[in-house]
Amino acid sequence: MSCDFLALALPGVQKLSPYVPGKPVEELARELNLDPAGIVKLASNENPLGPGSKVLAAIQAALPELTRYPDGNGFALKQALASRYQVSAAQVTLGNGSNDILDLVARAWLAPGLNAVFSQFAFAVYPIATQAVGAEGRAVPAREHGHDLDAMLAAIDENTRVVFLANPNNPTGTWFDAAALQRFLAAVPERVLVVLDEAYIEYAQGGDLPDGLDFLPRFPNLIVSRTFSKAYGLAALRVGYALSSPQIADVLNRVRQPFNVNSLALTAAIAALQDDDYLAASRQLNDAGMLQLETGLRALGLRWIPSKGNFIAVDFARDAAPINQALLRAGVIVRPVAGYGMPSFLRVSIGTGAENSRFLSALAEVLKHG
Amino acid sequence: MSCDFLALALPGVQKLSPYVPGKPVEELARELNLDPAGIVKLASNENPLGPGSKVLAAIQAALPELTRYPDGNGFALKQALASRYQVSAAQVTLGNGSNDILDLVARAWLAPGLNAVFSQFAFAVYPIATQAVGAEGRAVPAREHGHDLDAMLAAIDENTRVVFLANPNNPTGTWFDAAALQRFLAAVPERVLVVLDEAYIEYAQGGDLPDGLDFLPRFPNLIVSRTFSKAYGLAALRVGYALSSPQIADVLNRVRQPFNVNSLALTAAIAALQDDDYLAASRQLNDAGMLQLETGLRALGLRWIPSKGNFIAVDFARDAAPINQALLRAGVIVRPVAGYGMPSFLRVSIGTGAENSRFLSALAEVLKHG
Repeated sequence: MSCDFLALALPGVQKLSPYVPGKPVEELARELNLDPAGIVKLASNENPLGPGSKVLAAIQAALPELTRYPDGNGFALKQALASRYQVSAAQVTLGNGSNDILDLVARAWLAPGLNAVFSQFAFAVYPIATQAVGAEGRAVPAREHGHDLDAMLAAIDENTRVVFLANPNNPTGTWFDAAALQRFLAAVPERVLVVLDEAYIEYAQGGDLPDGLDFLPRFPNLIVSRTFSKAYGLAALRVGYALSSPQIADVLNRVRQPFNVNSLALTAAIAALQDDDYLAASRQLNDAGMLQLETGLRALGLRWIPSKGNFIAVDFARDAAPINQALLRAGVIVRPVAGYGMPSFLRVSIGTGAENSRFLSALAEVLKHG
Repeated sequence: MSCDFLALALPGVQKLSPYVPGKPVEELARELNLDPAGIVKLASNENPLGPGSKVLAAIQAALPELTRYPDGNGFALKQALASRYQVSAAQVTLGNGSNDILDLVARAWLAPGLNAVFSQFAFAVYPIATQAVGAEGRAVPAREHGHDLDAMLAAIDENTRVVFLANPNNPTGTWFDAAALQRFLAAVPERVLVVLDEAYIEYAQGGDLPDGLDFLPRFPNLIVSRTFSKAYGLAALRVGYALSSPQIADVLNRVRQPFNVNSLALTAAIAALQDDDYLAASRQLNDAGMLQLETGLRALGLRWIPSKGNFIAVDFARDAAPINQALLRAGVIVRPVAGYGMPSFLRVSIGTGAENSRFLSALAEVLKHG
């Protein structure tokens, strides 16, 4: 007779439903006995460009040191980020993906009796990280699928320690402008930390999408979180970062595992940061793919949420699960978002032109027979 | 005027002193203006063999998928571990290094009002992970630098949720035998989790060092933690794992970040696990290096703690800090362990024959002038 270690786990942990990632190609191939080479995955907002040559060269150069621990302080990458963004290295916290950054914030400042505010339809890791430490997550009803910043302000009370904002937001692609961000930050109590998750910012920088870094000098409670997983194309390697005041970075670095970012990730991120051509190509491919998908979806008579990310949430105005299943059988993996409370939607990542075509024709086929 | 976000952090976090890693070669080179190529690092218990060819080939094969997320479930590596150790994949939890495993245990089962028991002179991450979640860490006085298992049993009370054991222990190299482990596990209350950290087991498997996996079927409160960072030579990539009951693995996997182990780590670990020649060569090099260091230390009239790891803790019977500083100036990095309460010791990792010679001759020089 053995003990019930689930019942002995902390209350928040007991109730955790783990994050459900996009289905890996190999997994679908195993399940449906398909040829992996014929499967198209547009489910995880990955960069369809493939790795850049500078990144690959940096990794090759680092391979002889594989038996050595990473630099636990990430000295060189912090220097590169500091120089790129005109901040000091003491303002940088490195994460095992930006997921790690979100987790570190929760572990440093949230606990039972405290709460975090975020938007309905926001990234699943905000509620997961909040619940894992036993704090209350307050999901504020969205407005047209985007953040209702006024309602989020109203949800803050004396026990709120953290607000999670995403701009653009995943999985909806929605965004808010600089004036809205300014008003929000000016109104938030100064003791409440605002995590501004800009995982997708590089796809839409400029225009009416604000740059969170412009607000850092004025708002010492602001943490800007970014990632190398999307436009920089390093999802496999897990590297994200936060920019904040040095004091906040000091606290995050206390909680951080000493070698949370691995050596190949560190060196690849430095190379990626210096590869302006790759970033420009990522954005160009994304712009073209967005146009291609919008045109194709329009031709199919479908609606979607306008997006500044590298993905589109398509509204089928009925349960999307059977459509998702039919797409899977056709070897096309997209992302169901029923878990986000959006059961009539599927989120489609923007792929190469060929991948987008493959998705659109499979979808046309599915809808014809549905 | 901005808020004090250190004061707003959780009490346990405020008091955290981050883990101090071994000094990286590049850092010493910067500080003392030395040529990195001339520096010998025997500070982090790294594998001096360098990466194996099978690991390198596996990484090369995975590079085209760098823009894709890792398999969040680590399907293939879990299968490989399950098959190697004759357990089910549901008993495996993968970690971003075994540090991650230790952290997951603390986050799942420890909180303010609860405590974890570990030995004096044990791995620094046990108290750090315990304090980060606001629990009490109980460091039980060691016996001849090793675990005093009877005293550890006596330290367990109704609020104890976790015991951390290390066999062999880092930084001392001490160990206990199968009979001692059996007695300990049989006496621990069944609701107390026992984490048996076997990070160094591959260096000394057989002989009187027990294999924790033999005890898993009889003790459902046992978690065996292992790593690919040492004998398998993958410190740069961060991959460790826990083997436990499926229920414990389920809880750990709820707390785990969805992509905590990166793609290159997953593929490299599978290749490493199948490379028996590399493992044998690691152990052989370690055995030879241990003999070389012991012989050299004896010739210098020094004493050390007998070790079953890939390192030796040398006792200088006086403050070892000046000796460490002199070694650094000579381009030799070893590990001061004053932070472990062992100010008269330095921990020396076993390197190649040439590295060991370099250390011994630098040490002889230092002692002559000290």
